[in-house]
Amino acid sequence: MSRLNVTQKLIESHLVSGRMTPGEEIGLSIDQTLTQDATGTLVMLEFEAMQVDRVRTELSAQYVDHNLFQEDFKNPDDHLFLHSACRKFGVWFSPAGNGVSHPVHQERFGIPGKTLVGSDSHTPAAGALGMFATGAGGLEVALAMAGKPLYLNMPQVVGVELTGQLPDWVSAKDVVLEMLRRYDVKGGVGKVFEYYGPGLDALSAMDRHVIANMGTEMGATTTVFPSDGEVRRFLEQQERGGDWRELLADDGADYDEHVSLDLSTLEPLIALPSSPGNVKPVREVAGEEIYQAYVGSSANPGLRDFAVPAMMVEGRRVPPGVSFDINPTSRQILENLSNESYLSRLIRAGARLHQAGCNGCIGMGQAPATGRNSLRTVPRNFPGRSGTPEDRVFLCSPETATAAALTGKITDPRELDMDYPRFQEPEDLVINREMLDPPADDSGLVELIKGPNVKSLPDFEPIPAEFTGPVLLKVGDDVSTDEIMPAGAEVLPLRSNIPAIAEHVFKAVDEKFSQRAKALDGDGFFIVAGRNYGQGSSREHAAIAPRYLGLRAVCALSYGRIHWQNLANFGVVPLTFDDPDDLGDIDQGDDLALDDIATALGNDEAITLHNRTKDRHYAMRHGLSARQIDMIRHGSLINLVRTES
Amino acid sequence: MSRLNVTQKLIESHLVSGRMTPGEEIGLSIDQTLTQDATGTLVMLEFEAMQVDRVRTELSAQYVDHNLFQEDFKNPDDHLFLHSACRKFGVWFSPAGNGVSHPVHQERFGIPGKTLVGSDSHTPAAGALGMFATGAGGLEVALAMAGKPLYLNMPQVVGVELTGQLPDWVSAKDVVLEMLRRYDVKGGVGKVFEYYGPGLDALSAMDRHVIANMGTEMGATTTVFPSDGEVRRFLEQQERGGDWRELLADDGADYDEHVSLDLSTLEPLIALPSSPGNVKPVREVAGEEIYQAYVGSSANPGLRDFAVPAMMVEGRRVPPGVSFDINPTSRQILENLSNESYLSRLIRAGARLHQAGCNGCIGMGQAPATGRNSLRTVPRNFPGRSGTPEDRVFLCSPETATAAALTGKITDPRELDMDYPRFQEPEDLVINREMLDPPADDSGLVELIKGPNVKSLPDFEPIPAEFTGPVLLKVGDDVSTDEIMPAGAEVLPLRSNIPAIAEHVFKAVDEKFSQRAKALDGDGFFIVAGRNYGQGSSREHAAIAPRYLGLRAVCALSYGRIHWQNLANFGVVPLTFDDPDDLGDIDQGDDLALDDIATALGNDEAITLHNRTKDRHYAMRHGLSARQIDMIRHGSLINLVRTES
Repeated sequence: MSRLNVTQKLIESHLVSGRMTPGEEIGLSIDQTLTQDATGTLVMLEFEAMQVDRVRTELSAQYVDHNLFQEDFKNPDDHLFLHSACRKFGVWFSPAGNGVSHPVHQERFGIPGKTLVGSDSHTPAAGALGMFATGAGGLEVALAMAGKPLYLNMPQVVGVELTGQLPDWVSAKDVVLEMLRRYDVKGGVGKVFEYYGPGLDALSAMDRHVIANMGTEMGATTTVFPSDGEVRRFLEQQERGGDWRELLADDGADYDEHVSLDLSTLEPLIALPSSPGNVKPVREVAGEEIYQAYVGSSANPGLRDFAVPAMMVEGRRVPPGVSFDINPTSRQILENLSNESYLSRLIRAGARLHQAGCNGCIGMGQAPATGRNSLRTVPRNFPGRSGTPEDRVFLCSPETATAAALTGKITDPRELDMDYPRFQEPEDLVINREMLDPPADDSGLVELIKGPNVKSLPDFEPIPAEFTGPVLLKVGDDVSTDEIMPAGAEVLPLRSNIPAIAEHVFKAVDEKFSQRAKALDGDGFFIVAGRNYGQGSSREHAAIAPRYLGLRAVCALSYGRIHWQNLANFGVVPLTFDDPDDLGDIDQGDDLALDDIATALGNDEAITLHNRTKDRHYAMRHGLSARQIDMIRHGSLINLVRTES
Repeated sequence: MSRLNVTQKLIESHLVSGRMTPGEEIGLSIDQTLTQDATGTLVMLEFEAMQVDRVRTELSAQYVDHNLFQEDFKNPDDHLFLHSACRKFGVWFSPAGNGVSHPVHQERFGIPGKTLVGSDSHTPAAGALGMFATGAGGLEVALAMAGKPLYLNMPQVVGVELTGQLPDWVSAKDVVLEMLRRYDVKGGVGKVFEYYGPGLDALSAMDRHVIANMGTEMGATTTVFPSDGEVRRFLEQQERGGDWRELLADDGADYDEHVSLDLSTLEPLIALPSSPGNVKPVREVAGEEIYQAYVGSSANPGLRDFAVPAMMVEGRRVPPGVSFDINPTSRQILENLSNESYLSRLIRAGARLHQAGCNGCIGMGQAPATGRNSLRTVPRNFPGRSGTPEDRVFLCSPETATAAALTGKITDPRELDMDYPRFQEPEDLVINREMLDPPADDSGLVELIKGPNVKSLPDFEPIPAEFTGPVLLKVGDDVSTDEIMPAGAEVLPLRSNIPAIAEHVFKAVDEKFSQRAKALDGDGFFIVAGRNYGQGSSREHAAIAPRYLGLRAVCALSYGRIHWQNLANFGVVPLTFDDPDDLGDIDQGDDLALDDIATALGNDEAITLHNRTKDRHYAMRHGLSARQIDMIRHGSLINLVRTES
């Protein structure tokens, strides 16, 4: 047995298929799942469609933290639906007001040595406790809830050795900003960052959460910390000492890549607009006027991340032109802030206190004014994500954000005329688990609550023996999932309503597309496309909604990888032309036929596509795995899981 | 000298024109103005257009409390504009996070004996301190800021004698609900409710605020309380004892109408969906399941309105299916709630704590789920106002809302198994005035900050000697201001941008209207209409935006009263047909002419309208006052004020 690092130990103990060779596909058994409300409604509808009675994980938890702004009935209806789904399927429910999924999960449910998959890209935050935690698409999370493994490529493990101690006014956010300065937003792809070394000792479990959370910004598969004495202290403080187990790298364990970071050399850092990788020392941009200083989010969720600002502003006042936005990350943190008088100090100094949740971090309010600078402790500053076009959002530590709030300008906090406030964990920390609703015991009796905008997933028929239909649309190269299934304020609220969202398929390309599809009256159709069909966002609706309208096969020169998988998952045959020149032979409106496609998919030979309008035949290929062929034969992956469960 | 009630004393001391005979027009000098952000941007633009350097009131205050949800740059840009306008024009600025205008105004600025006009219908709340406070349109508030009187009809004064003491579990909201039960939503039109009698003693100044605030729901001009010892106590507590003066009715003062209300006979009341006048005892609807219990708003703003709920929920927990929404009404109240541990009790019991402001009370979030009951301490439950169509919103006291939060059902709070918690005003109440920004001394130097969506009001030319133009649109009877100038999510954010909002004029009636208007290239046009033109909402944009597009005269059978005034205010000539049959003679597209209209308006004779297309002449009438004719001659009331200042 070789000497393993923590990542390898986590993977090895959950490996159900593949080998631990970087780049090879591995299957992992999943202990826990996490869903939030923006993605969770589809996950629950997919789980419902699988007809599995109850989750088969050790623990699944559903959080309501994204869509807290209840402009009309849609968001509150979704919350009620999620609550009923939790009761029915055996999932813990964290209602609106309980806070952001990641810190609450760490406080209440995180367990060293376990695997976690979540329908949220910042799920890796749980790596702070020595978990293997990663984000995935909705269907993959629903499958994990149904007891299926998660498939991913074995990552390379980057060992990050931390030495030294953070200087005054420098904190966890500056550590991960330094990593982003070195790796930029793509440098972590295919990698796990595993932190170790003596520098860990002074980083609390919530500090580690900050670093693990924003590992996502480097494109990493996840971030892993050991489960050490600090994790024990954290779990004991949360009254969950029994969940602790030690998980350390073996002595002499090796890594695929090595980095060292001397914490004592760090200074306050800031990511400039509009990329998390655009990192500079704060002093280089000091003096620029700000509109907003924003504290909170899963990328700075800890009590200390609010307590330090509260101590900094005590007896001071932010200038009236500055919006000093405080976003408590959980009910428990809000309660402790209130009990320890931190909250009063923030309010008195001029803070705007918002409800516990994601808020502006995911563009739900708190947009900055035109052309004005916003300093935020959130994980991302992609252009326009704040809600304001051409926004100027900077990412920084709570110390730097608060220094700017006090001066009205970007300010290196070391330049403030004050001592660095030392945060002490309160001895009488309040634990608040009262509002987490456990799954019902009698879950079979629970009825799903579906408001007018929540519809069960449509049932998809198994593939027919022979399939004929018209080319309903022919498109060119590089058609993105944004063109197939638009997002935006009008369409996003329809994500839990496939019949309604299907009205918008290809709307910008061909306004009458869905109308023409529905005129076929249930008979299916083909789409013909050029290269790179379905590039871009991974949204599953770009496969589900066209499938609902009757799409049975796509014939293209090539595909975006994730959309190609999504098509197969929802029972659409994705074919490529053997001879690219054949593409030009097909016109929109031509009648196509695939004979005995279910059998043909199983053969290694080319599949014959018959253009009945022109009486021509084309050789088509598929690169589907045996399991993917099985999905398509059953009509969808969900149908397949039904037969297996 | 006759013996006067408080209302008459307030009016007499500010009377600049007219006589105090109910129904006659009176002019009042205005001491203070109040604006909020949703209406304040237009007020400030109107004030800017008047070219008055600085407000001529004793005090003007601008609050940011409505549009706190910053979905994009528009709301924060509006906030910055308002702040700059306050600095320039000599207005106090209360930034986002400071809370709802009405309670903050009462805490910081309300002074017995003064008059207040506000661009918000709940401005009468300040009557709690013995002020004459009333809501008005934006332009009337801008005029008051410029030192002009406010014109209104002398109201009847209803004397409401309060006797007895409120029983346990019954509070100020129940008093005003009882008044609504008696008067319904129109019973107060043309009236002032003036409260007096021994029952007042146990009603705090903030309790009186609750009653005065919701007097608006009866259609009242305003509500007035005397300035007595309790008002003195309140002002001293706010560290403004020097602002107190006694203001009581003369012994033997009489009222136009008499009511008595024995407080000891009241029980917990509730207004059922969907009218504030639909009032029943809570016990009659007890047992219905609820989705939401909502505490806060200007109709229950006091510290006690949150402290009593906090004491009620101590050691208890709301069921996880209930949304228990807490909306602190001001920074000061939030700070005191936090200091006195009320906040911790609410959070622990499961409350969702929202930012200080109007929030769901004006439909900014917090919409209930479909078909679910919502109990709220807000002033209004008109259909759909919550954001959810066919909503079920009930109005009640904090006690009743909290009882429902605890049981999950509508509950008479007397049925709870607990003693009525006694609220004591804290001895060390914190006063928070730090974030109120006083007007700048060097206001001439301040530049207005106008984001891309804030545009100065367009300049309107004086009326030309002869005016000719086409009938750009001919419409039928009962065209509302909603048809002239639509509201809705797309249009509302353009209220501070006349050129942009003008694109939407008559959109639902004639999609190309604004395009056709602009094709005239600055030459004006006519609108011809049937009866009751411009009925409905009082929005000024329905006059300003068509005027911007070139509207110079409307020829109609009759007008909605307020729109008729608004047309004159913005320089449009509103004419009526002497012979209604002439209307049928005019077609859309006909060329009309008014010769020497400026002179003709001054004569008593009919005005000749020449249809040049058909070579016909019609006799037209106007009912304009001399001042209105002057406005039209100058191009607008704003232009006229400019010449006077």
